Amino acid sequence: MMDVKERIEQLRALMREKGIEAYIVPSSDPHQSEYVAEHYTARTFITGFTGSAGTAVITLKDAGLWTDGRYFIQAENQLKGSGVTLYRMGEAGVPTIEAFLKDSLNKGAKVAFDGKVISVDYFRGLQKALESKEFSYDVSEDLIDKVWKDRPEKPCTEVIIHEVKYAGQSREEKLAEVIKEMKAVGANHYVISGLDDIAWLLNIRGRDVKCNPLTISYVVISNEKCYLFIDEKKVNAQVRAELEKANIEIKPYDSIADFLGTINEGTILLDPAKTNTWIHSAIKVKTIEAMDITTRFKAVKNDIQVQNVRNVMVRDGVAMVKFINWIKKTIKTRNITEIEASDKLEGFRREGENFYDLSFGSISAYKENAAMPHYSASQETQATIKPESLYLIDSGAQYLDGTTDITRTLAMGPITEEEKTDFTLVLRGMIDLAMQRFLYGATGSSLDILARIPLWNAGMDFKHGTGHGIGFFLNVHEGPHRVSMVPNTIKLEKGMITSDEPGVYKAGKHGIRIENLVVVQKDVNTEFGGQFMKFETLTLCPIDLDAIDASLLTAEEKAWLNNYHKTVFEKLSPFVQGEDLEYLKAATRAI
Amino acid sequence: MMDVKERIEQLRALMREKGIEAYIVPSSDPHQSEYVAEHYTARTFITGFTGSAGTAVITLKDAGLWTDGRYFIQAENQLKGSGVTLYRMGEAGVPTIEAFLKDSLNKGAKVAFDGKVISVDYFRGLQKALESKEFSYDVSEDLIDKVWKDRPEKPCTEVIIHEVKYAGQSREEKLAEVIKEMKAVGANHYVISGLDDIAWLLNIRGRDVKCNPLTISYVVISNEKCYLFIDEKKVNAQVRAELEKANIEIKPYDSIADFLGTINEGTILLDPAKTNTWIHSAIKVKTIEAMDITTRFKAVKNDIQVQNVRNVMVRDGVAMVKFINWIKKTIKTRNITEIEASDKLEGFRREGENFYDLSFGSISAYKENAAMPHYSASQETQATIKPESLYLIDSGAQYLDGTTDITRTLAMGPITEEEKTDFTLVLRGMIDLAMQRFLYGATGSSLDILARIPLWNAGMDFKHGTGHGIGFFLNVHEGPHRVSMVPNTIKLEKGMITSDEPGVYKAGKHGIRIENLVVVQKDVNTEFGGQFMKFETLTLCPIDLDAIDASLLTAEEKAWLNNYHKTVFEKLSPFVQGEDLEYLKAATRAI
Repeated sequence: MMDVKERIEQLRALMREKGIEAYIVPSSDPHQSEYVAEHYTARTFITGFTGSAGTAVITLKDAGLWTDGRYFIQAENQLKGSGVTLYRMGEAGVPTIEAFLKDSLNKGAKVAFDGKVISVDYFRGLQKALESKEFSYDVSEDLIDKVWKDRPEKPCTEVIIHEVKYAGQSREEKLAEVIKEMKAVGANHYVISGLDDIAWLLNIRGRDVKCNPLTISYVVISNEKCYLFIDEKKVNAQVRAELEKANIEIKPYDSIADFLGTINEGTILLDPAKTNTWIHSAIKVKTIEAMDITTRFKAVKNDIQVQNVRNVMVRDGVAMVKFINWIKKTIKTRNITEIEASDKLEGFRREGENFYDLSFGSISAYKENAAMPHYSASQETQATIKPESLYLIDSGAQYLDGTTDITRTLAMGPITEEEKTDFTLVLRGMIDLAMQRFLYGATGSSLDILARIPLWNAGMDFKHGTGHGIGFFLNVHEGPHRVSMVPNTIKLEKGMITSDEPGVYKAGKHGIRIENLVVVQKDVNTEFGGQFMKFETLTLCPIDLDAIDASLLTAEEKAWLNNYHKTVFEKLSPFVQGEDLEYLKAATRAI
Repeated sequence: MMDVKERIEQLRALMREKGIEAYIVPSSDPHQSEYVAEHYTARTFITGFTGSAGTAVITLKDAGLWTDGRYFIQAENQLKGSGVTLYRMGEAGVPTIEAFLKDSLNKGAKVAFDGKVISVDYFRGLQKALESKEFSYDVSEDLIDKVWKDRPEKPCTEVIIHEVKYAGQSREEKLAEVIKEMKAVGANHYVISGLDDIAWLLNIRGRDVKCNPLTISYVVISNEKCYLFIDEKKVNAQVRAELEKANIEIKPYDSIADFLGTINEGTILLDPAKTNTWIHSAIKVKTIEAMDITTRFKAVKNDIQVQNVRNVMVRDGVAMVKFINWIKKTIKTRNITEIEASDKLEGFRREGENFYDLSFGSISAYKENAAMPHYSASQETQATIKPESLYLIDSGAQYLDGTTDITRTLAMGPITEEEKTDFTLVLRGMIDLAMQRFLYGATGSSLDILARIPLWNAGMDFKHGTGHGIGFFLNVHEGPHRVSMVPNTIKLEKGMITSDEPGVYKAGKHGIRIENLVVVQKDVNTEFGGQFMKFETLTLCPIDLDAIDASLLTAEEKAWLNNYHKTVFEKLSPFVQGEDLEYLKAATRAI
């Protein structure tokens, strides 16, 4: 880790030059993306820690990395010898970044960061927490860029058009609806920074971020026109023509700040959670702050999108069936490594029509490895799957006509009673949420408990949300709705898709998760209730009957499972043959 | 309603004199109380509408009253002929007060209200929503007071000491804990406006507000001392001596603003939801805004309080058993009016040790009247209970050692299958919430759905929260926790008490509600779950077996019910005799 030490010293030399006493390096890009292109991995560069979440703070004396429970072990390993201290967020006695800065720096010190990668909300929170210290803030410079000699270029992949037959709505219609909303809130201009919001709005996609079919860009909408700020090299003549037809003007990516600076009257709408401070500081007129209009719209899938996802699920399910049949058969004759398994599944997926990419790095985890919900197998440390115990595969793909995300936990041979019980309780939670009618107005926070009760009654819990929204040929994690104990105020609307993925994780023993995607549909409307909603399960793939203790299921749960398997067989059987078909038949039998 | 018309004209004359174009009259007092003393019923005075919630806006041309769905029918009747327009809040096309003011007044108009009865939060919301109109605000005068010739005096009831044997903690200890929290947030002074917060903190009570054992006052705490701003006539020598022992200085009620104005350095902590704008505008130093420390502390009942409530529940349960036996027996021989019934119950309650007052006006509602969740019987319009269908009684009392709130729905004779099914589904919801183990960290919003699922599955719902917090010899509604679909971020802590009261309301037919109070207790702490919590049911009173269809209950629900009834019999039977005992025995039999 000599590299990291040297990098930090070079950064400090620059800090001294500029009178900066602390430099903050977050893990985000200028668009507050969850996953970023390599160019934006500044925090990894300066600390050596590669996890997706974490913030570095470098002072003239200290260097610290703050990350959450998912990454404690990984960060500890990767920070060894770097001189960077690991701050385990949420643990007792561990200071927050704000508390650390309060304690480490004198009153009036200068704190700095690259204003392009810090959101308005984050900066405000920082300023408020540190008010009493009267710090000055320099947000003008990306100092890491000056230290990072061989920094990867910004990604520059070609923009493709996402056809209306997939998206279900033209960019002209979407723009018109957004402009209508802008008028309703009294906004004359509207800045959009979220890459998935932009991709959705303009029906464009790219490959700028791994597994996320995005193109790095900003959008500004006036009441008549839309401006796309993007590296023009990414836009070929045909795409440009398509966009210009919709009154969309292309401008250089970095010119957005100057452009916003020329707006001298009216109001600008922006989402302070998504907009970076560099953009914000360029604005001269009054702003209106709210969650992105596009975020709300994008979450509600139209009927064409939902039908597309139904079609995608057949292809994705066929790949899963081929994979499960392969692994169940192969394990009887030889051991398999975790990476071989996920590669095999990727191969089956690639055969599917409209396949574009994986939607995230697969979690292929055997036995105790599966007890780490965010486990990632590496060539050096991966486990070998043996014909016993449980194997967990959490994976998904990007298709032009939809995004998938599925988890199955499979018995590789004999499993213990404890494994069987735990599996069945997780399954019960998954089913109990999937089959529950609920009143319109309920949020994911209202419903979350349904997936936990069978586990709670047995003294278990899982330390993650029950479900996340998902994009349509977009990010695998997409808000604003979420099924979680964490309060969420977004009502579940017809057309919202969420995962349903309870789990059990027993360190050193096993990990179980079962995940389907479901879409919100209307149910009955009654005199003494009102409008009810329900979930339609979209994912099509058998749930391993070898791992179920049927005696633990209620009659309703058993009926749900048998009905689900009947549907899976009906939808997938036309597309699988031979041994795969035989396997599918057996795997979807009624119990 | 000639009165109201004249009053409004007199108000308008004053408004014209002062150049005021709109005057806002809310339903609150200077302490943002839910229930107010008669002196503070200014909104009733100016509109004639007596409901507990609603806001009047008087302009030079128009007069409007905004209220919610609970009061549409009542308001319509009471506003007849008054010239005041009813605005049904939440209905499609009905403008909010802000939208009404935006439309009715010209830019730069002067809007006014009595700053003492409008909270900082409310005023800020108003200003923000109306920003574009550039109104000026005059918050200095209570114009209603000038019109209201025979206005009732401010209440002036004697302050009593709430003994530590009831409260479980001395005022000295409470003050020390509050001061510790003040220091933690960096506050040098702390203003408390909530009457129940003050009563809790200082272990004092009064009778200034009907059914709410409060004394109107403010508190300011410095790091060394506590000041109680109160009408000194209410404090006798003995109470004064007690308070002075705890370093509490008594000052005139209205002198608080001047007092706050003399604070020239440091910071003042306040809750902007509870502090009125008159108080706020007197403050010259920096404020720290947060939910009242006392609100958080007060919600968590200590072990002595919980034991006191258990004792109270025996007395309250005995009164309920005597009442139920009386009404069930009497209805066989003659009809009974709704008010006779609730008076009878009050009589039984008054016999109980430590009885102080009712905790709210009883809801005594027969058959279709019970379909109005907030029904209040009047001498003129009350129904006569007959030996058939369902009767609902929602009532409670203030005892020195605790506050009760219970609802029972009783079969008065034969009931229909529909009534029986609905009753049983409501009961199932009540039980399902009461018996569910939950992980520490869950809020009332996480759990609310449990009480609704049996109803949702049958296409029904109830349009109110499932449960509210309750005070200890204090207000019957006490936050900050709440069991509700409305997002609530307060974790359920050991010692928090909440009601558990699902219902079914079928207009023109019947209304059913079953309500117990429960207290949060610790449950198991497990390796793969963590700290679990559970509810202990506090309320002791039979649930009418005559109204239950036992075939609809699950085995667990039936076991819960039988076990509950066993406990009810064990705890109450030593205190009832003769026919009441016979009735109790039969009413708590196992099914």
